[in-house]
Amino acid sequence: MEISELGEFGLIRRLTEDIKAENKSTVKGVGDDCAVLDYGGPNRILVTTDLLMEGVHFDLQYTPLMHLGYKSVMVNLSDVYAMMGTPRQVTVSLALSKRFTVEDIETLYSGIRLACEQHHVDLVGGDTTSSLTGLAISITAIGEAPADEVVLRSGARPNDLICVSGNLGAAYMGLQLLEREKLVYYQQLKEAGDQRDQVQFQPEWSGREYLLERQLRPEARRDIVERLRQAGIRPTAMMDVSDGLSSELMHICTQSHTGCRIYEERIPLDYQTAVMAEELNMNVTTCALNGGEDYELLFTVPLTDNERVSQLEDVKVIGYVTEEKLGRALITRDGQEFELKAQGWNPLKA
Amino acid sequence: MEISELGEFGLIRRLTEDIKAENKSTVKGVGDDCAVLDYGGPNRILVTTDLLMEGVHFDLQYTPLMHLGYKSVMVNLSDVYAMMGTPRQVTVSLALSKRFTVEDIETLYSGIRLACEQHHVDLVGGDTTSSLTGLAISITAIGEAPADEVVLRSGARPNDLICVSGNLGAAYMGLQLLEREKLVYYQQLKEAGDQRDQVQFQPEWSGREYLLERQLRPEARRDIVERLRQAGIRPTAMMDVSDGLSSELMHICTQSHTGCRIYEERIPLDYQTAVMAEELNMNVTTCALNGGEDYELLFTVPLTDNERVSQLEDVKVIGYVTEEKLGRALITRDGQEFELKAQGWNPLKA
Repeated sequence: MEISELGEFGLIRRLTEDIKAENKSTVKGVGDDCAVLDYGGPNRILVTTDLLMEGVHFDLQYTPLMHLGYKSVMVNLSDVYAMMGTPRQVTVSLALSKRFTVEDIETLYSGIRLACEQHHVDLVGGDTTSSLTGLAISITAIGEAPADEVVLRSGARPNDLICVSGNLGAAYMGLQLLEREKLVYYQQLKEAGDQRDQVQFQPEWSGREYLLERQLRPEARRDIVERLRQAGIRPTAMMDVSDGLSSELMHICTQSHTGCRIYEERIPLDYQTAVMAEELNMNVTTCALNGGEDYELLFTVPLTDNERVSQLEDVKVIGYVTEEKLGRALITRDGQEFELKAQGWNPLKA
Repeated sequence: MEISELGEFGLIRRLTEDIKAENKSTVKGVGDDCAVLDYGGPNRILVTTDLLMEGVHFDLQYTPLMHLGYKSVMVNLSDVYAMMGTPRQVTVSLALSKRFTVEDIETLYSGIRLACEQHHVDLVGGDTTSSLTGLAISITAIGEAPADEVVLRSGARPNDLICVSGNLGAAYMGLQLLEREKLVYYQQLKEAGDQRDQVQFQPEWSGREYLLERQLRPEARRDIVERLRQAGIRPTAMMDVSDGLSSELMHICTQSHTGCRIYEERIPLDYQTAVMAEELNMNVTTCALNGGEDYELLFTVPLTDNERVSQLEDVKVIGYVTEEKLGRALITRDGQEFELKAQGWNPLKA
């Protein structure tokens, strides 16, 4: 069977569905943003890992190495925050191809270390090896949270409010912009008789910096976790938006055995995202639903937290949780109801 | 600067030498088999990670996927045992190229799960993604050990005995055998007019099974850790032999600020290793010193443990620790003294 028939989540389900934990230190295994471990201390230990491959997750022709290092750490820290946890350590493994110099790797590492410093995380180990082909970056983050504060994907209940931080779709628009500029650049090279195919380029981005920053240098939302804690709000379910809002909503609904209704008009968008979508002739809601790489936090809170959550800076209520049998729906601006489909980032789909 | 000028350990030193830990949960960071963390529970938490790349760490033309999965877990568990720890969890990240089917990945996973089951380790997470090129496997292992039983590389003291488990060089001889058979096989294909270059082959290995097993399906030495514990022996320093005995001895001596003397005649060798080295016209001591991938345990114990350690099954005393100024020496069978050099596996050397 082709892997693309199952896709990433289908394959993971097939490989891991009958795994049972043997150790009492294993509280929660595969299936959430982090594994949850209990080694007898006051807090639960959270572990998450990501493997980033050149050509699949990043394109070195337009991704500065320092930003790549920063982002590689950030996508892992985001998973720890998505459990209401505090990240403490990372391990960093790199597989390097021959074309990199020591200075290149120092630049990559400066981004890794900057991300660690800004989030008070210690780099405690890793592996450095060679690659015959592209660059591979594997990072594992370890964090902690009090046992009764860990938020899983499975705790959403009917009538809970669905909230999201920041805005969505900007990272995807940034990617579209970079890909378009890359095409234009190679077209120009070709017209000038230049046959090279691995050149770094730096076009003018003025006015689009926000989209590029969201794509190239995302920031994990520690601030949102802190605000929730300060406001005394305990989300019933939470995850970070890495594959796209639709896909993440499906995970929460599946694991919580619920449905949901979200409102198109309430999905938070940045002005630049809307402008860029229009320029590219794309539906901005589709971009926000399926774009991915936003690294915002998607969470549900009890209806009784309505007032408190509405006052939170940079958080928006976009809908509510329903009984499972009511399905998963998007209500459009003109009041029509559509079934939500997860069409987001899926590296193993055809 | 070319990365090969520094090599793996030089590069790691350069990238990480000025890192300082910010969190009190970080007890020991970069520089040992595992990072050591203290999250307030009764035991220290141990974390280690390895990134294995196709073409660098394994050759799929002669490596069965199930064995590859098994070995990928084992090399991480070995690092936990090398701290006198007990592994409890692993995360497994895979980057898959298109040529794999779902059944292939199930086979790889069956090896991963077998290794976990045999060592009572839970698979608690990971990442599954695609690769434009070869297969990448990144595994992180998490384990534990009582705080006063964690053994670092830095605790060796002059007059301590240097011990090693099992025998050395067999995995390297297995690799040489596989590489030779691969050459012969392609030669035959070529002579038969067959131009393929990515064929799996399975020649006759009879009489060489042990060498192949050591290369393809190594076993982490939990049994040695258990025997040491039962005998009440607390090693002063320990690490696993992954890059070769010389290289590992250098790490222990450097971090413990000591020298060492080891005796060629005492280095444990299997009969098949010696036969194969002779057949390939290689010096068997060189193979044992620099071969790598043995996944045996190298450790030092106080001289007062001489009697107890000498009675341990499958453990051999090969020399002793000296003052740093006396250097690191190999005493040959004819009594000559040579300076030890780490010429083992170094994926980033030219």
